[in-house]
Amino acid sequence: MAVGCSSSSTKSTGQLTEVRQGSFATIVAAPENPDNPTTPEKVELGKLLFFDPRLSSSGVISCATCHNLGLAGTDRLPTSIGHGFQRTPRNAPTVLNAAFFQNQFWDGRAQGLEEQAKGPIQAEAEMNMPADMAVERIKSIKGYHEYFEKAFPGEEDPITFDNIVKAIAAFERTLITPNDALDRYLRGDKNALSPQAIRGMETFERIGCTSCHAGPALSSGAMMKFDWGSDPGKASWTNNPQDEKFFRVQTLRNVSLTGPYFHDGSVETLEEAVTIMARVQLGYELSDQERDDIVAFLRSLVGEMPQVEVPVLPAE
Amino acid sequence: MAVGCSSSSTKSTGQLTEVRQGSFATIVAAPENPDNPTTPEKVELGKLLFFDPRLSSSGVISCATCHNLGLAGTDRLPTSIGHGFQRTPRNAPTVLNAAFFQNQFWDGRAQGLEEQAKGPIQAEAEMNMPADMAVERIKSIKGYHEYFEKAFPGEEDPITFDNIVKAIAAFERTLITPNDALDRYLRGDKNALSPQAIRGMETFERIGCTSCHAGPALSSGAMMKFDWGSDPGKASWTNNPQDEKFFRVQTLRNVSLTGPYFHDGSVETLEEAVTIMARVQLGYELSDQERDDIVAFLRSLVGEMPQVEVPVLPAE
Repeated sequence: MAVGCSSSSTKSTGQLTEVRQGSFATIVAAPENPDNPTTPEKVELGKLLFFDPRLSSSGVISCATCHNLGLAGTDRLPTSIGHGFQRTPRNAPTVLNAAFFQNQFWDGRAQGLEEQAKGPIQAEAEMNMPADMAVERIKSIKGYHEYFEKAFPGEEDPITFDNIVKAIAAFERTLITPNDALDRYLRGDKNALSPQAIRGMETFERIGCTSCHAGPALSSGAMMKFDWGSDPGKASWTNNPQDEKFFRVQTLRNVSLTGPYFHDGSVETLEEAVTIMARVQLGYELSDQERDDIVAFLRSLVGEMPQVEVPVLPAE
Repeated sequence: MAVGCSSSSTKSTGQLTEVRQGSFATIVAAPENPDNPTTPEKVELGKLLFFDPRLSSSGVISCATCHNLGLAGTDRLPTSIGHGFQRTPRNAPTVLNAAFFQNQFWDGRAQGLEEQAKGPIQAEAEMNMPADMAVERIKSIKGYHEYFEKAFPGEEDPITFDNIVKAIAAFERTLITPNDALDRYLRGDKNALSPQAIRGMETFERIGCTSCHAGPALSSGAMMKFDWGSDPGKASWTNNPQDEKFFRVQTLRNVSLTGPYFHDGSVETLEEAVTIMARVQLGYELSDQERDDIVAFLRSLVGEMPQVEVPVLPAE
């Protein structure tokens, strides 16, 4: 690969390809957590728990309710519906490729998938299940005992809340969506992206979207200020005025499948979301052509969905 | 097979095997509906619809919510939780092997799977989705159009409520659970059932359970009087006093996975359910041994669960 092309004054497609090598990356595998190494036994258990509505106090809400794997890991609602049919305050981010992030939740109040998973189980408006009751419920289902023993070998009392979320996180690390058109393009298939999508990618880089949306998940995962709506974002838990309206940068993988958009789900279409992001975050007014090009690029980010068989849950 | 053994006065195991050939049958395939022949395209579409929460007015409840294929086609609740977190009046019967029945719902108010599927979608306390709105919602998801065109070829306007339920019913006809221990036993594997389960099967026949619980689904599917609780059963829609407390005979396939039991989900354990059924329906007081034997037999009715991959639903 030639180096130094970026010193040229005009930004041709070829030169932007050079830039792009730094901004984008293919999805290969999710990063591991050294404190919770993935094993097939943990993934299998985590899959059961992810789909098990008995982890909720009502017995009808599972992780999969709001992170529906048939709907690209979301619920396609502006904000989710949880325990007692309460509306949650924010839009459910996709679980697909969530393993690429350290900051979890829109407001970054959890670090890593394990800590994240503790939230919705216990949240009164989501699964409404206190941690000790979750452990008690799972322990009462004898069929789970062997799964926990296999997933956490050598532990005397493996059914703990920490192990429940470790298993769920291990399963979530398998929920990645490789081989979308961008991935194939980056690997050298120059026809994988349409000419319009390539133009969109170039505009995306040129106007600065890649300053936040880069890397394999097309997100730095950082907390960034986004002045939209009344939600205080990170300040809602730090109570620090400097964190006002800071939100975790979202992944753009599969973004065309995960509307409505933003933390409050207030925006229906990708076209509108792109226009707003350019204006609010970059002070840039997109032309209709630029907007449509970027949307064409974003639509190329639909990867291979994880193939997940509905697990047969332990009955008793 | 020897004929005429049943003329003997004592009921030995061998003789009961003769009787059993008449009472039981293996599960091979669900009966077809000539008005809705199964095709792979219809099954594929039906699977999408079965899992699609957008068929509910809230967007979070799908057929699979109450008929969870990970929980043997039920929700494992006494009575279901539906729209607005309302409790439904009755226990959700399993969708597994439901195709064997003409009478549908506990009170038999629908005939066949197609008519059944119309109920929960529209019921205010379940999915709360008027038929015309369901059609409108599905039509608004362009990705569905091709699926309907393939499933109902030659139809000018294939996205209709009738076709929605036809597709769901076609998928449901694939949800059968063959090759349980009884099936293998009936095919000649005399070790498939434990000695206790065989004793239980014989008691089951001897005291008359098979007068209602026979055939491949271990249910005649008929409406029978069961005087339990305050639910008027079939009379709730016929308003005929003669239908008071008549309920559809339930399948016993996978029954150990589908508690709590009865139309009101009032009974937690299979042991208790068996004791009550013998007493109330047959006037027979089971000894502890007989009860445990029958339960061992019923536990042998767990078949091969359908392998269903979480479908990728059309996004827009």
